[in-house]
Amino acid sequence: MSLDIDKLASLCKRRGFIFRSSEIYGGLASAWDYGPLGAELKRSVKDSWWRDMVLQRDDVVGLDSAVIMHPGVWQASGHVDSFSDPLVECAVCRRRWREDKIEADACPECGGGLSEPRMFNLMFETHLGPVRSEQNTVHLRPETAQGIFVNFANVLTASRRKPPFGIAQIGKAFRNEITTGGFIFRTREFEMMEIEFFVPPGEDDEWHRRWIDESLRWYTRLGVDESRLRVRPHEPDELSHYSRATSDIEYRFPWGWGEIQGTANRADYDLNAHAQASGEALSYFDDRLGQHVVPYVIEPSFGVDRAVLTFLVDAYREEEAVSAKGKPEKRVLLKLHPTIAPVKAAVLPLSRNDRLTPTAREVLGIIRQSRAVDGLVQYDDAQSIGRRYRRQDEIGTPVCVTVDFDTLDDRAVTIRDRDTMTQQRVPIHRLPDELRARLAPNPEDKA
Amino acid sequence: MSLDIDKLASLCKRRGFIFRSSEIYGGLASAWDYGPLGAELKRSVKDSWWRDMVLQRDDVVGLDSAVIMHPGVWQASGHVDSFSDPLVECAVCRRRWREDKIEADACPECGGGLSEPRMFNLMFETHLGPVRSEQNTVHLRPETAQGIFVNFANVLTASRRKPPFGIAQIGKAFRNEITTGGFIFRTREFEMMEIEFFVPPGEDDEWHRRWIDESLRWYTRLGVDESRLRVRPHEPDELSHYSRATSDIEYRFPWGWGEIQGTANRADYDLNAHAQASGEALSYFDDRLGQHVVPYVIEPSFGVDRAVLTFLVDAYREEEAVSAKGKPEKRVLLKLHPTIAPVKAAVLPLSRNDRLTPTAREVLGIIRQSRAVDGLVQYDDAQSIGRRYRRQDEIGTPVCVTVDFDTLDDRAVTIRDRDTMTQQRVPIHRLPDELRARLAPNPEDKA
Repeated sequence: MSLDIDKLASLCKRRGFIFRSSEIYGGLASAWDYGPLGAELKRSVKDSWWRDMVLQRDDVVGLDSAVIMHPGVWQASGHVDSFSDPLVECAVCRRRWREDKIEADACPECGGGLSEPRMFNLMFETHLGPVRSEQNTVHLRPETAQGIFVNFANVLTASRRKPPFGIAQIGKAFRNEITTGGFIFRTREFEMMEIEFFVPPGEDDEWHRRWIDESLRWYTRLGVDESRLRVRPHEPDELSHYSRATSDIEYRFPWGWGEIQGTANRADYDLNAHAQASGEALSYFDDRLGQHVVPYVIEPSFGVDRAVLTFLVDAYREEEAVSAKGKPEKRVLLKLHPTIAPVKAAVLPLSRNDRLTPTAREVLGIIRQSRAVDGLVQYDDAQSIGRRYRRQDEIGTPVCVTVDFDTLDDRAVTIRDRDTMTQQRVPIHRLPDELRARLAPNPEDKA
Repeated sequence: MSLDIDKLASLCKRRGFIFRSSEIYGGLASAWDYGPLGAELKRSVKDSWWRDMVLQRDDVVGLDSAVIMHPGVWQASGHVDSFSDPLVECAVCRRRWREDKIEADACPECGGGLSEPRMFNLMFETHLGPVRSEQNTVHLRPETAQGIFVNFANVLTASRRKPPFGIAQIGKAFRNEITTGGFIFRTREFEMMEIEFFVPPGEDDEWHRRWIDESLRWYTRLGVDESRLRVRPHEPDELSHYSRATSDIEYRFPWGWGEIQGTANRADYDLNAHAQASGEALSYFDDRLGQHVVPYVIEPSFGVDRAVLTFLVDAYREEEAVSAKGKPEKRVLLKLHPTIAPVKAAVLPLSRNDRLTPTAREVLGIIRQSRAVDGLVQYDDAQSIGRRYRRQDEIGTPVCVTVDFDTLDDRAVTIRDRDTMTQQRVPIHRLPDELRARLAPNPEDKA
């Protein structure tokens, strides 16, 4: 497929999925805002993940911890010491560069001499309260995981759980990356969906495998092409300081394979580190062994923005079609799974017409009132019906509901399928059930 | 009612609603983490708001903009110059205090002399990229509104809208407040739900009234006691620099009335300021007038954490009840509206028993598979049935579904209502419809 990322970014801007952040001020490097459709797509992605990972399971509970945490957290976790890149500084213009990305020993910008490499921490630093002192220095979290570890004992007690069980969290994280890019692929502000799954030591390898499979299934259940996904275990020299084993799920983006998910076996690294630094016991009582045990941790970690990008890239299609006037034309569509499509259904009167409008509005009301559709239902009566179908195709709306003059007599509407373009006549009173079936999250749920 | 906030905070910790953030490190001042039930409650609150304000309306679209924006945004918005408190500094210990909270002219901490007041900006400051220079200084947003204003033109074009229409956003904001407190009432990191509703100039007073009413209805529809709510218009000398008129919705907390929502008439202040600073036109073409017009803005702004606190305080009840053994006992319950209750239903086998467990698990599966319940369904078989009812009452679960030995014969279960404690026998095959009706968001939706 010939999709390049600029073409996708252009569609995303035109249709209101994703805008450059602060664009009227010239933008902010690698920062993006989600427009009306993008906000809805992202929300659906997070919702679907939460449903699958928390609501539908008995062994995972949720958490929502703060972005700014106690400084001791990042000291104990190793982020203050180890979460850094080697940078060199130009003696003339003071610009800094990542040492491993620089080929010559002179500044790529001004030709000045470069310093010896110095470690630069990737965490954003700020101050709590009015005094700017070392004592008041805090960081924006570079991952959501530590918020889970420091709440382990509280969650264990309050939810009366024992390993194996997990704690899931969705939220923003911030990394002051030097190298960003690939549209929304690598940005300094991003959102993550993470689970810390606590298991008895010895069961960690088995759970590591299970969570890799489970994670992969989440993407394929939402329609991602399996042939564009791969699991890549890390080489020993790639492993993070806390990890016994890590496997990435990668997607084949237009520019090559890119990590969209990682499942790490963090063993007891984090709980031990926090127990030691805080003096609190972070363990559970194992009835079988008759003693307190520090569990091992399996961490499936998903990028929200990368998931959104994966779904968009994977769904993008250009097809040969025939226009209303019988001429060949290009049809652009986003073949998004109904669960994540930003607009679930569109109600389209054949034309903007005083006789059709009340009935079309009534149909919209019936759909909303029935709660058959969990998400956005759009009403559109601008321009020709052919152009409106193309617009809905381009934003990935799975079904269009058309109200025409026959509707006024037979109380039936036409349902048009985005992918096959086939049309089916359905009585209005059967519409909620029909939509429920067509938008079902899993094929086996269809009526 | 005798509820004091410490009692609520204690329930919140014990049951996993809200924990002190970074508690194992001694906590971080006025920072809180949402535990398993709190995360679910907060998620339901945001979901409900999004449904009512975006999905169910034709005149509001969504947005999800970045926390860190271009520095020019805060310059133009007036936050760099005006978003500040007067602070005095102690010459001895260097602590800073809000001038208007200090009564003597000596430091309350060490007795040292205090400086003249100096303005202290409430925005958190950090740096983008490795160089810490004035050029790279950025702020964490103190409100989500500006992200909407700077995207106005992009949203207008992409969504083909004209005023009156609104843009809604839910997200984190950060204010380096000196005075915090009231549990989760005033914290430095918090979440907001905001709409910027753009209207033709002249229609602003009418829309201002409408949005105050609409906002009030959002709380009462979710069950908040009307007698504990009031609308308080700001006095002229209270108004922010951008506001023509503002009305707060206040709730009567145990410590007194507190603002939980505000609706401001921001007129054309923000769009004009950004148009001037950026050089971009931020207006729409008014067909009737035949010219470009800068719309006025009505801003209904809701605190997410304050909404959560309002719902918790309002739902808290202590009742006299009778224990299973016939003794009088205190029943604590959270009378939360089903739409926001963290656990929507609990499946409880009468006891943990090899004969009951498979059927109870089957019932759980039927409920989940039916998608009749939009949210968490808990399974609990620990301790006596009486204690489990009390536990579910205390976390606000609207209905319990009990599986007993008769179920094995008659394929029926008992549904127990949280508020009335009445029980009803229902065949398993009718359970999804029964739950759907009992958990309906509005009484008129009930079957």
